[in-house]
Amino acid sequence: MDEKLLNIGEYLIQKIYESGARHVFGVPGDYILNFYAKLNNSPLELINTSDEEGAAFAADAYARVSGFGVVCVTYTVGGLKVLNATACAFAEKSPLLVIAGAPGYKEREKYPLLHHKPNEYDDSLRMFERITVASTGLENPAEACKEIDRVIQTVLTLKRPGFIELPRDVVDMVVTTASRHKEHVKNPDLSLQTEAGDALVHAINSAKQPVIMAGIGILRHNLVSALESFSEKTNIPIVTTILGKSVLDERNPHFLGVYAGIIGDDAVRAYVESSDCVILLGMLLTDVDMGANTAVISPDVMITLSDEECSIGNHKFSLPGLMLLPDLLEKELCYHTISGVPAPVRERLPTFTPSDTKITTKSLVPAINSLIDDKTVLITEVGDAVMMSLDITIQRSGGFLCPVYYSTLGYSVPASIGVQAACPDLRPLVLSGDGAFQMTGMEVSTACRYHMNPIVIVLNNSGFGTERPMIDGSFNDVAGWKYHKIPEITGCGKGYLIRTEQEFVDALKEAYASKELAILDVILDPDDISPHLRRLCQKFSQGVKQ
Amino acid sequence: MDEKLLNIGEYLIQKIYESGARHVFGVPGDYILNFYAKLNNSPLELINTSDEEGAAFAADAYARVSGFGVVCVTYTVGGLKVLNATACAFAEKSPLLVIAGAPGYKEREKYPLLHHKPNEYDDSLRMFERITVASTGLENPAEACKEIDRVIQTVLTLKRPGFIELPRDVVDMVVTTASRHKEHVKNPDLSLQTEAGDALVHAINSAKQPVIMAGIGILRHNLVSALESFSEKTNIPIVTTILGKSVLDERNPHFLGVYAGIIGDDAVRAYVESSDCVILLGMLLTDVDMGANTAVISPDVMITLSDEECSIGNHKFSLPGLMLLPDLLEKELCYHTISGVPAPVRERLPTFTPSDTKITTKSLVPAINSLIDDKTVLITEVGDAVMMSLDITIQRSGGFLCPVYYSTLGYSVPASIGVQAACPDLRPLVLSGDGAFQMTGMEVSTACRYHMNPIVIVLNNSGFGTERPMIDGSFNDVAGWKYHKIPEITGCGKGYLIRTEQEFVDALKEAYASKELAILDVILDPDDISPHLRRLCQKFSQGVKQ
Repeated sequence: MDEKLLNIGEYLIQKIYESGARHVFGVPGDYILNFYAKLNNSPLELINTSDEEGAAFAADAYARVSGFGVVCVTYTVGGLKVLNATACAFAEKSPLLVIAGAPGYKEREKYPLLHHKPNEYDDSLRMFERITVASTGLENPAEACKEIDRVIQTVLTLKRPGFIELPRDVVDMVVTTASRHKEHVKNPDLSLQTEAGDALVHAINSAKQPVIMAGIGILRHNLVSALESFSEKTNIPIVTTILGKSVLDERNPHFLGVYAGIIGDDAVRAYVESSDCVILLGMLLTDVDMGANTAVISPDVMITLSDEECSIGNHKFSLPGLMLLPDLLEKELCYHTISGVPAPVRERLPTFTPSDTKITTKSLVPAINSLIDDKTVLITEVGDAVMMSLDITIQRSGGFLCPVYYSTLGYSVPASIGVQAACPDLRPLVLSGDGAFQMTGMEVSTACRYHMNPIVIVLNNSGFGTERPMIDGSFNDVAGWKYHKIPEITGCGKGYLIRTEQEFVDALKEAYASKELAILDVILDPDDISPHLRRLCQKFSQGVKQ
Repeated sequence: MDEKLLNIGEYLIQKIYESGARHVFGVPGDYILNFYAKLNNSPLELINTSDEEGAAFAADAYARVSGFGVVCVTYTVGGLKVLNATACAFAEKSPLLVIAGAPGYKEREKYPLLHHKPNEYDDSLRMFERITVASTGLENPAEACKEIDRVIQTVLTLKRPGFIELPRDVVDMVVTTASRHKEHVKNPDLSLQTEAGDALVHAINSAKQPVIMAGIGILRHNLVSALESFSEKTNIPIVTTILGKSVLDERNPHFLGVYAGIIGDDAVRAYVESSDCVILLGMLLTDVDMGANTAVISPDVMITLSDEECSIGNHKFSLPGLMLLPDLLEKELCYHTISGVPAPVRERLPTFTPSDTKITTKSLVPAINSLIDDKTVLITEVGDAVMMSLDITIQRSGGFLCPVYYSTLGYSVPASIGVQAACPDLRPLVLSGDGAFQMTGMEVSTACRYHMNPIVIVLNNSGFGTERPMIDGSFNDVAGWKYHKIPEITGCGKGYLIRTEQEFVDALKEAYASKELAILDVILDPDDISPHLRRLCQKFSQGVKQ
């Protein structure tokens, strides 16, 4: 495309393409329709979901697995519907670009009450400003290209969402100059880097019982190889937290399991909490990741390398620490010989042979472990879906997705669409509670429409199983659906009604062997929850009953 | 309940009850769970939907038909999902109270990253502030009761949404004094009222071809009888706009039909646009209500009586005008004899006898008109569902609901739940496009759960029919669902696949005769749209292609 002849809509499409996205997710509407027509004639593929929230979750997952995702919706009635998903992307650092149409500036001046207007014309823009790292209303066409560049570049750099409101009267305006926005990049302070690097090496080499705690920053900044080399070179074992689960192939010999305070494995917890040097790489210290705030790790023993921070105990260096990881590998790091390292969780799981007994949360985990492969991306809802997954061994870096910190429901089925759009050779395995499925699960029809084939497991326990142990009441029930009959409505895929272990294993095997979308309707007792969830709920109950 | 022993949660419940609501809609979550437990033990009935947005739309419809509606959700992952519905309630003046749980203030101080936190702890509150008439975070327990009173009272007075964020650590705090908030009510300026009243009478009596244009303010402020008396006494005919449709029983002899610029009936339009005195009662002058801004009515001939305004032509009186309507009836109003008043639209509709020919948008309208009764509330989505409904005669005041100005999709099925909760003796008749149905239509399972029986007509034309005439592309398609098979999933209700006029009439008759929920899957051609919609799209296309 010749930049001189571009209009603003085409320019935006070009920049999306250059930033690596090949798909745009959304639902059209009249204020964005002229831009949709342009998208439709562009190299980008449009994926239309049933609801805007589904589009945003799909784009978020696309961003998490591929580095950049785009959702495009209409003004307010589309935009406000994706605020929740955008907040999730902000909280969990996902590089998501939200584009929303809007009335033209000229028509706003002429008409005070155009349809879709909430209170003021800028309400949507002001809301998105709060939960994005860059946003713009493109009110000045002369600045539009610079603004588009600024927003996209900030999203790519900070790995958090950005927002572009696109008044429909600017879409076709031709831009004559399109100078790429130059972010003022500070020159790195080399002497501080050296000082910090030396101090880090000293601290790590001196540790008796060090452990690496790897977080999502490793994935967002493509540092998986560096992480693996670092562990290999130092012989320091690795744990992740729940949000960081699957930053590396979990069959890695140095990987012990997921650390989650009292929620997680006891041996892993004991090792981490008695460590004299916990190396936090790209972590967010959230309540969930700290085991519902039960983690007992003194800041004194923490080395923190993140997007924002570089610290050894209470000593902070004024530079982002995560960027130092590759440099560390060049330095003289000791090979540690540590006593008391527990065997990895994956080696301590009980053996499993399916029988005709009733399926339970306990048997689901080994059953899935026996069939999951290195082409699977496991996508779970929060609640027991994620809790039971702590013990599922993920066989590829980035092969697990769950918005466990922001903890919104309804993520998993839409996310499977985003994952498969980005990586058609991977197979999404979705683990959803029934409550969450009822929010967005009918997006399986979108998967059908675009010839995708996630395997969707619905944990059908008749309600919100995470809330029952805290405070129960009929408000925790959900309406009864026959999930296995959904293919009769969508006209695609195969449904399975599952009551026993053997039925589950047979169905999952068949689903993996088939190219069809599958829905496994797994009947569980309402009070059957995993041990991890039970411990989480015990802790969370204290908050509820405070 | 003894006020002295109440805690803040109980106080809030008491005030909701006193304000007239008997139901609360929502989806629980841990930050609101302790309040849910209290609701569950209160005289209020909880209605849990599949998704929070469904709960908010249901509560909005409840508010529109009964005067006050409440939705109660958890922090952010619930709250942000209902921003769109709250914006709708703001735009269209619906007295909706939104309650959202939140982390306790003490835990926020202790932990910087509690789950569900977007960017800052107050993001949600700040977003709701923009689209509510009153909002509060209850950060000061000593002021909590006063704040609750202030928010609810403002909602009830201004008929627009309010927001209460309920940190979970305040729910159980006991309040010792609960002084009702006293709104500073200005004493009405009696001399100005007299002056305005006299001027109004003079203007109305002098008019040659007056017309009343009645809007939703009539419904919100319970002025239906006053409207009918005013028309009866003066013999001035009544039109409504689309948003105001059904402010009165449309069989009223003075009711001509819906005015909507070039979109609506030509004879009604000609009469209104040649009027020398258009009396606007409780109207919002939106683009949709002005026939996509095609209305040709000079401000010089307008008399405006609304919540905010009182004006005769360009002369404004500084007082709210709608409150003057009852007083006007006491004054000496002339009985007009007007020539050239068109026959009401309902008397000019073609006769209809169903046949075995293919069902079309043209035949749907008389078919529905032949069966609708005075116990029906017609609830439509925007798009052709509302456009074809302009010619359906509503047989009760308030018997039509559609968010036609804010124009969000996904309203109708959830709204039917709100309507039937408020008025169990009424029968909701839902008219939904297939695109809209895919957003929230599975809430039919919520209707089933609470033994409700809306009749849901899905206009199955394979996509967004409103957008096709503007700019078409595959992005206007929606995934194919077999809507009539949904009862097989929800385990309740009856589905009908409908291809002919006769099948439609038979199914609708059967549905009315039955107490069961019904889903009528009406197969339409993708390019079959009503004449009203065609004219709307022609006008809207100009905006899209500007």
